Amino acid sequence: MALGDRGEKKRISPRMSKRPADASGRLAHLYAVVLAGGEGNRFWPLSRRTAPKQFLRIAGRRTLLQQTLVRISPPLPTQRVMIVTNQAYQNDIIWQIRDIFSRPDGVNLLLEPSARNTAPALAFAAARLRRQDPDAIMLVLPSDHMISPVSTLWETIRRALPLADAGELVTFGIVPTEPSTAYGYIKRGTAVKGGYRIDRFIEKPPEAMARRLLRQGGYYWNSGIFLWRAAALLEELRRHARRFVAPLTAMERAPDAAAVDRAFRRMPEVSVDYAVMERTSRAVVVPARFHWSDLGSLTALDELAPKDRADNVVVGEVIALDTANSILYGGRRLLAAIGLRDMVVVDTPDAMLVCPKQQAQRVKAIVGELKRRDSSHYHLPHQESRPWGSFAVLEEGPSFKVKRLVVNPRTRLSLQMHRHRSEHWVVVNGRAHIRHGNRTYELKRNEGTYIPKMTKHRIENRTSRPLEIIEVQSGPYVGEDDIVRFADDYLRGKRKV
Amino acid sequence: MALGDRGEKKRISPRMSKRPADASGRLAHLYAVVLAGGEGNRFWPLSRRTAPKQFLRIAGRRTLLQQTLVRISPPLPTQRVMIVTNQAYQNDIIWQIRDIFSRPDGVNLLLEPSARNTAPALAFAAARLRRQDPDAIMLVLPSDHMISPVSTLWETIRRALPLADAGELVTFGIVPTEPSTAYGYIKRGTAVKGGYRIDRFIEKPPEAMARRLLRQGGYYWNSGIFLWRAAALLEELRRHARRFVAPLTAMERAPDAAAVDRAFRRMPEVSVDYAVMERTSRAVVVPARFHWSDLGSLTALDELAPKDRADNVVVGEVIALDTANSILYGGRRLLAAIGLRDMVVVDTPDAMLVCPKQQAQRVKAIVGELKRRDSSHYHLPHQESRPWGSFAVLEEGPSFKVKRLVVNPRTRLSLQMHRHRSEHWVVVNGRAHIRHGNRTYELKRNEGTYIPKMTKHRIENRTSRPLEIIEVQSGPYVGEDDIVRFADDYLRGKRKV
Repeated sequence: MALGDRGEKKRISPRMSKRPADASGRLAHLYAVVLAGGEGNRFWPLSRRTAPKQFLRIAGRRTLLQQTLVRISPPLPTQRVMIVTNQAYQNDIIWQIRDIFSRPDGVNLLLEPSARNTAPALAFAAARLRRQDPDAIMLVLPSDHMISPVSTLWETIRRALPLADAGELVTFGIVPTEPSTAYGYIKRGTAVKGGYRIDRFIEKPPEAMARRLLRQGGYYWNSGIFLWRAAALLEELRRHARRFVAPLTAMERAPDAAAVDRAFRRMPEVSVDYAVMERTSRAVVVPARFHWSDLGSLTALDELAPKDRADNVVVGEVIALDTANSILYGGRRLLAAIGLRDMVVVDTPDAMLVCPKQQAQRVKAIVGELKRRDSSHYHLPHQESRPWGSFAVLEEGPSFKVKRLVVNPRTRLSLQMHRHRSEHWVVVNGRAHIRHGNRTYELKRNEGTYIPKMTKHRIENRTSRPLEIIEVQSGPYVGEDDIVRFADDYLRGKRKV
Repeated sequence: MALGDRGEKKRISPRMSKRPADASGRLAHLYAVVLAGGEGNRFWPLSRRTAPKQFLRIAGRRTLLQQTLVRISPPLPTQRVMIVTNQAYQNDIIWQIRDIFSRPDGVNLLLEPSARNTAPALAFAAARLRRQDPDAIMLVLPSDHMISPVSTLWETIRRALPLADAGELVTFGIVPTEPSTAYGYIKRGTAVKGGYRIDRFIEKPPEAMARRLLRQGGYYWNSGIFLWRAAALLEELRRHARRFVAPLTAMERAPDAAAVDRAFRRMPEVSVDYAVMERTSRAVVVPARFHWSDLGSLTALDELAPKDRADNVVVGEVIALDTANSILYGGRRLLAAIGLRDMVVVDTPDAMLVCPKQQAQRVKAIVGELKRRDSSHYHLPHQESRPWGSFAVLEEGPSFKVKRLVVNPRTRLSLQMHRHRSEHWVVVNGRAHIRHGNRTYELKRNEGTYIPKMTKHRIENRTSRPLEIIEVQSGPYVGEDDIVRFADDYLRGKRKV
């Protein structure tokens, strides 16, 4: 804690207030690049391959991605927000953007052709931004961190802007509060205006070493939040990571999207810390004064949720006897706990986890095993978001599937057809407008209909209230991929970069 | 273990083989009285008020009640099996009897007018049996214990029969294998042929005392399994429990079922141990050589299920890392465990329990709390048995409910009607024969129909394979009690004693 960043703030603030034109001039070239392609395995079973950590609503009614976006826009206009993700997450992200922004169309989605760690993703984003604005400054933000308060985040960004504008590669350093072994550490070097040159990076240390670093002082946690000119990143990448040179040039000269994809795939699968930050002489750390957590394991729930008198985090219907300092994260079912200490219990509709807090990091091993088995518990959450709303699978048998669909107000599903399954629908809430072959009709609550296989159909909610339908699918094959789309409001199946 | 019951067996067996006529003569008057009215709270969340422990299939494909019944019949004919239970469990028990006996109608169901502990229940049974057969000998068996092997159970019964026939009240004593604090103890007195007079009964002792009893020797666990003449029980009850005298006389003279009920309700709510066994001079203990467990808490799962290499009981889909000596009893969901020792994790579709093995007895407190709250987790299992099959609630909202019904081969539901809800059915497996108002029709797989409220209807499975239907109920009220039955194969709503 003896890092003196309070003093730095005093040095910076007057300068910012003396030169407002300059600061707002730089803001005009500021772009946020939100990294939203990660799988967030360490939050399993809450997170899944198709519902990664950044999509979870674990701290409020908004997803972590949405919280990240509202932290930066405003002040940034949506047109200067770019989300880097992959095609699998595109639908969810579009829906989440629509949910929070009145002008969602401005948000730029950059789809990685494949997951290749942060250096290729940020090179891709930087190349795109520099073409659009040669003076572009990139604020790089992971989409699954917790940051508060927002005013302090922006204070830190403003303090770092002159450094980035001058060509430095800025990383935001978190003042350590405990000898954590979960983060990389940054040793600060000589002071510069607003921060410090970086002396060196230290990989996640063992606990004894972490204690020593804390005692010594002058170290920060590496937050993964960066600020730099797009051009500066590309220059330093070329200078220090030779294997990026050819693919970067190919990407810049690519005549079409396919050529961009090919160039991207040729980039080494490494982090931007490894490729650039640990090698460049232009690296600078700006101490952050905001409260930050990377929510790196389920124990982060301790920070997110209120606690009972025995220091338990209690979510959902829980009965706890003689249980203390535990995380009891229930789902839709009753969770009964007796005599627990420092435990994590997380319940979801299809999977549950029980482990001591100290071992919560080992969830990764469970996820690895599920991935190896290609288990549905790896891929699928009980409830899946769709651009038009969501569905939950209530029951599944070899030749049938029962779903509850929630269709958001004034949206509709695609005009579609199934080759192998027929569908029975019963409206249990709201009013449905049905296209069935060439006919259209309305279904009120408690009314049902039957769509045979090979019949074009569409469900639409024209009202201002959610529409809820129980769907019974029946047929020899009831997989999600048995769908032929004829028209879609969400352009699914088409790449949108 | 130094109880010398091996020697007793040698004494008895030759006598039995020398007098076969006598033994079979006694067997002709032997009746089994199976106590199946208990709530089995200590197995929550596996057991519930409407699915008590004796109905669980925790050790094989048969319920504990069914296992109890097949242990005794054969050799006893079903006509000499009486099940004492309450009205709430009647349907389930009828179905379980049908499932295992080719002549199920012989089984006698005795419905307690209310739950009043074992003394009134056994007095009620004894009065009924003595009227039917003045020489009746009652073998009293709890319905939720584990006993093996059956041959040794019957060897013990045969050893005890002459004692019971001579008017003794026989209790079966289990040779203690550990200083358990979960059982009452019996101190044996002087030897009689086949067993011992009972010196005294000892309530569940603290552990230090239990150790001392084990060291001293000559003690047995009180199994709750009895053998006596019905007449002898009634005599001793009158002699030692004065408050039973008037209600017993009233019961014997009762002109109708209502008078029997009234007499029953006047009996004190006490155990037969307290009312008779601890007081009578005719109490005898016969050492049992069978393996026995009263399955008194969830840790009994340790005895019932096979274990993995780390001594974990693993049921269902489980991934366990660095976990040992634990009970991981999964349901239909994935259970992931990391770093657990001596823990119990039990998962059911609507509730889960996590506790150290040592505290498994405290489940009673959870059940007490649920009962106080009148919680559905106290009453209802996810799946409920019915005489015609079973149903599971898949989803429930304020004005709808989705169920999966399984209708057993060649059975049908009652002819019924609902005042407040309509029902949509989709057949997902098998073939349904539907009565809909005055029409009848068939539904094949993937076909559906709609039954408006106030319309008589009936589902029947005329085939030899199970019929599976997804039912969507919809209406302002979807409670189970909105049902008007016009005809029922199972006489529901009518008392059958």
